[in-house]
Amino acid sequence: MTLPENTGISNAAQAPQSSRFDPSFTQHVLDTMGPNVEPRNRQVLSAFIRHLHDFSREVELTIDEWMASVQFVNELGRIYTESNKTRNESHRICDILGLETLVDEITHKIISDTGVDPTSSAILGPFWSPHAPFRENGGTIIQNPAPTGRVCLMHGVVSDLVTGKPVPNAVFDIWQASSNGKYDFQDPDNQTPNNLRGKFRADENGKYWFYCYHPTAYSLPTDGPSHQLLQMMDRHPMRPAHIHIMVTHAEYKGCTTQLYPKDDPWLSTDTVFAVKDDLVVDFKPLKGDDKAELELEYNVILAPKDYKGKVF
Amino acid sequence: MTLPENTGISNAAQAPQSSRFDPSFTQHVLDTMGPNVEPRNRQVLSAFIRHLHDFSREVELTIDEWMASVQFVNELGRIYTESNKTRNESHRICDILGLETLVDEITHKIISDTGVDPTSSAILGPFWSPHAPFRENGGTIIQNPAPTGRVCLMHGVVSDLVTGKPVPNAVFDIWQASSNGKYDFQDPDNQTPNNLRGKFRADENGKYWFYCYHPTAYSLPTDGPSHQLLQMMDRHPMRPAHIHIMVTHAEYKGCTTQLYPKDDPWLSTDTVFAVKDDLVVDFKPLKGDDKAELELEYNVILAPKDYKGKVF
Repeated sequence: MTLPENTGISNAAQAPQSSRFDPSFTQHVLDTMGPNVEPRNRQVLSAFIRHLHDFSREVELTIDEWMASVQFVNELGRIYTESNKTRNESHRICDILGLETLVDEITHKIISDTGVDPTSSAILGPFWSPHAPFRENGGTIIQNPAPTGRVCLMHGVVSDLVTGKPVPNAVFDIWQASSNGKYDFQDPDNQTPNNLRGKFRADENGKYWFYCYHPTAYSLPTDGPSHQLLQMMDRHPMRPAHIHIMVTHAEYKGCTTQLYPKDDPWLSTDTVFAVKDDLVVDFKPLKGDDKAELELEYNVILAPKDYKGKVF
Repeated sequence: MTLPENTGISNAAQAPQSSRFDPSFTQHVLDTMGPNVEPRNRQVLSAFIRHLHDFSREVELTIDEWMASVQFVNELGRIYTESNKTRNESHRICDILGLETLVDEITHKIISDTGVDPTSSAILGPFWSPHAPFRENGGTIIQNPAPTGRVCLMHGVVSDLVTGKPVPNAVFDIWQASSNGKYDFQDPDNQTPNNLRGKFRADENGKYWFYCYHPTAYSLPTDGPSHQLLQMMDRHPMRPAHIHIMVTHAEYKGCTTQLYPKDDPWLSTDTVFAVKDDLVVDFKPLKGDDKAELELEYNVILAPKDYKGKVF
């Protein structure tokens, strides 16, 4: 069986299943589900089983390939277990396959009917912390200065998608890696907890402002199964430089996303596929502020909690 | 989005992807693969990613559902790791989803062009041992008699698919659970290693014969993730009673399969979907042999190593 490659759509319609396989098998497996399955579970599991079987028939998956996959899955869980749940290679594998970004789109995408789009969502990733402290506007998240860090004054306005008005008291939570490409969790020799993390509350005009670093690109870990998969796919392990933000307010849908310098070389091949056009930003030289050499203005647009957008 | 359920075929052709999702995303993920990917890896990974994405869009998988799945996968590996690799729940999950049986069919199915079908394959399962001893025809695999075991004289002929002639010296490897539903590995208090295991060599007429037990139905473990999945699907955890056999000869394609008593109540809903029509057998009362109360005749048909069968 020869498959057309890289068509980007399912082959199910193009490649009829080889007639040497039992055509009733998948239905038989689905039919063993009893009457008491939750409707959502029935929908998800039925679709999962159909796609799993269609995939296996389409590529004529062999016993050896399947057993290697079982071992691969067991290895993911071994690393999670032995790292005391700090290293989640299963999560990374999903990121590398584009799944977290896709599910983030499915869960969070809002198609505006106002002519203005809300700020795009991007994946949370594994490094957000619920313990980041509140800091004052004008303060800094740099607690442990790094020799090569380039300080940036970041500022902007949080506004309402529908009215265009500012959203006072929106919480602007930011976290980023240091200039060595490591987050506080990963770098206890150089960073104290909550270095390069902080929450800021937008003022009465919806404005926030603080000092942070120009972000630095980094590699995913290169010593585990996720890197083996990247190598198998002839892909690099780099994430473009990025700043994580999570903007929330009780009356709005929250927005978790990432911002990327426009001159980063990894934008189009981000290992986790989290770059979107409105998240690519321009860091500009800053003059007249002896605390920072760069400036980044980024305005965030939030959709009201009950906003539906276009319905499909 | 409403899905037709239980159609048994992929919905990809019926349910167009919701237009609110980026139609170029999957292609973008596939395009990051470099030029140095092995062709088979490119084929398998491309199809896997397409099906994974199509599945996610089709059911509109949420972040919470995806994260629960990541945790589920990590839990499978934890059990494998903490059981010192003796308990493979990842393997069982595949069995419950029909994947091992499907991949077994894909790998081993032979469509005959002789009018006679070779003996069907069925999954190996986790209990085969490479250490089963050779025993003499007429011997027994029952080393530790069980109070409720019903002894059976099993016999038959191994023959050639093409010529119909016997296959002398074929190796007939058998393993089975005891009447308590447990294999030697699982039951060290009652069973010594290699109880209910043995290899027999077919004689010059292709005949084998020995004593074993009428098999006993048993449940998969009910304390782990595979049982959680069965419960979510409103399914029972039972395997029908079965005898495992693996018949090999240097000049033939090996046949690994399982035999099931025709009156077993779990035949049509086998948890691992390994029952096929030609594997359902009739245990008959035996008279005149004081060693056994039952008789099972089972003839095995092997395809020559270079036999191609119908080509598709």
